Order: sequence, then structure tokens, then C-alpha cells
Amino acid sequence: MLYLVGLGLGDAKDITVKGLEVVKSANRVYLEAYTSILTVGLDTLEKFYGREVKLADRDTVEQDSDEILDGADIEDVALLVVGDPLGATTHTDLILRALEKKIPYKVIHNASIMNAIGCCGLQLYNYGEAVSIVFWEENWKPESFYDKICHNRKNGLHTLCLLDIKMKEQTTENLMKGRKIYEPPRFMTVNQASKQLLDIIQNRVKSECEKGELLKDTICVGVARVGSDAQQIVTSTLEKMVNVDLGGPLHSLVIPGNTHEIEVEMMKQFVIHSDVNLNSLIK
Amino acid sequence: MLYLVGLGLGDAKDITVKGLEVVKSANRVYLEAYTSILTVGLDTLEKFYGREVKLADRDTVEQDSDEILDGADIEDVALLVVGDPLGATTHTDLILRALEKKIPYKVIHNASIMNAIGCCGLQLYNYGEAVSIVFWEENWKPESFYDKICHNRKNGLHTLCLLDIKMKEQTTENLMKGRKIYEPPRFMTVNQASKQLLDIIQNRVKSECEKGELLKDTICVGVARVGSDAQQIVTSTLEKMVNVDLGGPLHSLVIPGNTHEIEVEMMKQFVIHSDVNLNSLIK
Repeated sequence: MLYLVGLGLGDAKDITVKGLEVVKSANRVYLEAYTSILTVGLDTLEKFYGREVKLADRDTVEQDSDEILDGADIEDVALLVVGDPLGATTHTDLILRALEKKIPYKVIHNASIMNAIGCCGLQLYNYGEAVSIVFWEENWKPESFYDKICHNRKNGLHTLCLLDIKMKEQTTENLMKGRKIYEPPRFMTVNQASKQLLDIIQNRVKSECEKGELLKDTICVGVARVGSDAQQIVTSTLEKMVNVDLGGPLHSLVIPGNTHEIEVEMMKQFVIHSDVNLNSLIK
Repeated sequence: MLYLVGLGLGDAKDITVKGLEVVKSANRVYLEAYTSILTVGLDTLEKFYGREVKLADRDTVEQDSDEILDGADIEDVALLVVGDPLGATTHTDLILRALEKKIPYKVIHNASIMNAIGCCGLQLYNYGEAVSIVFWEENWKPESFYDKICHNRKNGLHTLCLLDIKMKEQTTENLMKGRKIYEPPRFMTVNQASKQLLDIIQNRVKSECEKGELLKDTICVGVARVGSDAQQIVTSTLEKMVNVDLGGPLHSLVIPGNTHEIEVEMMKQFVIHSDVNLNSLIK
């Protein structure tokens, strides 16, 4: 059996009781280590589980999946995934490859940022499409996420912005020369995401403001390390968010659409600047 | 401390290790029993936890929250919630009332249908706004969910349809007479939801079909008891879904928007009618 076990978002103890039983009894256990991270490392997990856990990077999960699936028709193999295992199609793809080999699978779900973002007070049912904000490069500055946020806002919906993660980047030089030397991991902060959004706002100066359009004083919510003991949430304006220090990864940014009073009351708990006023949000 | 502990979606063992520690050590433990249900009952939970758990219905959580919050400033009180605690604003409201009384709170997240729906193979990031399909009554047949589904489809997005739950309904007679006699709980099935959607489609016969519009042969995915050992998933047409038996609650329905090949491959695993063909979904 191939088990896909969600680890939740915080530390080792955010695994479910069912998931822990699988980890303890499986023949082999892999930790998927490129789509997200916990606040604890592999050592802590191995200690908590009392067993060896192999790191599986993107190549192992996506190309060399035979290693993971080897023998899973007769024994139990577990792939641990931070958050919930089925957020992205990466793991759906692994399931399809398992099914091709007649290997049965089971998913043990857990919290992911897609539902735990409820912590900022905005109702989950009022979110539109989630967007990914990617690191801009010198010659590649996509803006599609901005338009999706505005589109959600025009429809009164909140937007969860997932911020870029670069886990095993190679410099162009190393890539060209085929050297497997990787840069240190990079995680986009709420500051960087806000800065990119402000740059887009500035590029699109218009005579009139359209409904839903983002402005530098649009209220937003920055979150860091959701679900962990070190969770931080700040409500502020997009402009001020550029300078808010939310500490280590992972960060996410939420741009509200239409808000209800109770949502605003909750967001108020996280205001840190005395001149930021949320009353404008209540219709 | 007020703890809001997510129980996940399946059975007693879907609680996290962290959540279980809280349940075992808290002074009082309540189970919120009206927004969702597990596949196991209160008895099973009490046995698994080795302690007493009080049932908290809508009145207790929403109006008589003083009972739950009583003493939570000096001792630990846990409210257990099926799925994740912060999906709906009901529990945000309880947090606000706790904060008013200077009671600190902590949320222990878990899987909810909002992320576990990834099990049907459609990528979470491509969902638009979720909709609630409510039980129609003789003189009240809202159709707004239909329009939201079409709106999502027009934008290429999938829709998760949450199906109605009636937990402590009173007949009009009992309500008028102030008798606290409640009807048995009702959970909308995928059949009922599909039937209501088909009725709307029939009501809106048009000469031309608009982009994104639902038709009786639109492919959809019915899911039941997601995350439990008794999970069932069926891909079929809306029309055929009216007669698919997915067993006991809870059910949800997914209407795909634009689909990628890998999403379609996964959906194919759940086709039960030989004349249902998903190839039309691949653009």
C-alpha cells in the first residue's frame, strides 16, 4: 500500500493519530521536501517517530518515483507531505503511477494553508481562486496574480496568495555546466509580495479606479507559520506591509473582498499600526 | 485557555497528536455537533479519549457560550469541531467572545472538506468560490448556487458544492407552539443535489447555451464520507448522478471547470458507468 500522509502545518505533533500509526508500521518512509516546510527539521521528525525517514526531493517524487513505489504492492510505503497530500497535482501524479503498477493507495488528510488560513478571520466560503505570487526575475515579471486578485475582489471574494518557494535552485552557470550545485532555499516574505503588488499598482496608474482594484492603502492580512506555536498574523495596508517583519518562513498574504462585521472584528485583533483603520471595510 | 480542536473528517483517530494531548489534559471538553459529523459517535470518541465529552448544540455554541467559556481564563476548555475549527464564522464568533472576556485561545487545525476534496483529483488551486446547496422547500427554491457554479465555470474554475445539513429542525407546528421537539437530522445526498440542479437546468431552457452553463450531461464528481475508510467517489454525468447510491452522510458534489489531463486521469478512476466518457473534458 502507498500511503500519502499529511503532516499538517506546525511541528511533529501535528500529524494525526492515524498518520502516526502508519509511519510507525510502514516498511519505508519518505518526507517530500520541496513543496512546503514544517517549523521542525528531519531530525526532529525521526526522533518523534522513532525511525528513519528518507528525504525525497522533486526529482525523486516526480521522475524517480520507482524508488518510492518499489515493492509497495506487497509492503507499506509512506510519503509524508507537509500540509495535506492532495493540494497540488504532484501527488495525484504519483497516485496515478501507483495505480498503473496495481499498487493500492490511501490518503491520510491533514490541515493545509488552504483551510488553516481561516485563522485570519475571513470566512473560507468567501474565497475565490487562490493565486501564486512568484519571485520576479530581471527579465520576467508576470502580473497575472494581480489581475486574479482584482477579479476576485470585483466579485466580492477574498484571495489567498501563496508565496513562492525556491528549494533547489541552480544558478544559470551551474545549470548550463550541468553542475548539481544548488543555491540556499528562498521563501518569499509578505514584504516581498507586497512590494511586487505595489510595483504593479504603480505601473498601472489610471485616471479612474475600477471596482475591486488594489490600491496602496488596501487592507490586507499577512500570516506566517500558520498552525505553529510561532504563528504571526498582521492586518495592515499593502503599503505598510512592505515593512512588517513576520519572521521566518512560510508566509502567505490574504487580500479581502467584501467583508462581514464579524470578519472585520477578527481582523482587528491583528492590527499593529494605530493609524490603520478597518471601519472602511464594513459596508 | 480556550482550545478549538479540529477532528478531521473520518473517525476518532483523525485527531492530531497535539489535539489529543489537549483533549486528555483539558478540564472540560465539548463536541460541537451541528455543522458536521464524523463517521463515529460520541461514545466512540469518549472511549478513545478515555474521558467525558459534552455535546454542544447550536444554542450552546452561539447563545449560551458562557457555559463553554466559564473559567477558561484559569483552566483549559476544549471545543472539538469536525473538520477544521475555522471554516465558518460560527467559531470565529466564539473566539471574539472569549477575547472580550480576556480568555486566550488556540486553534489546532485539521483537514476539512475544503482541502480534503483534493481526493477527487481536481487541483485545489483551481477552485472558485464554494457554494452551499440548500434543501428546497415548497415555497422556497433558491437558485443562486446554480449561478455561482456557472460563474466559476465561465472562469475555468471548479466548484465545491457543500450539501445542506439539518440538525435540529422543528416542524412549523412545534416551532409555533414553542415545543422543543426536533425532527431527525437530514443530510442532503448527491442525488438530491443533482436533482435540484437538473430542475434548475430544465427551468432555464434557452435557445443557445452560454459558456460555462450546466447541462444534464455535464461531468461531475460525487463524494461521500471523504477521509474515512468508507470514502466513496463517483465521476458521472449530472443526470446519472441522480441515481448513484453513495451511502450514508456526508456527501459533497464537485462541478469541474477547465481540466488538465492529469485531473481527468484521476477522475477517470471513479467512473462507474461504461457509457460515461471524460475525453470531452480535455481541451
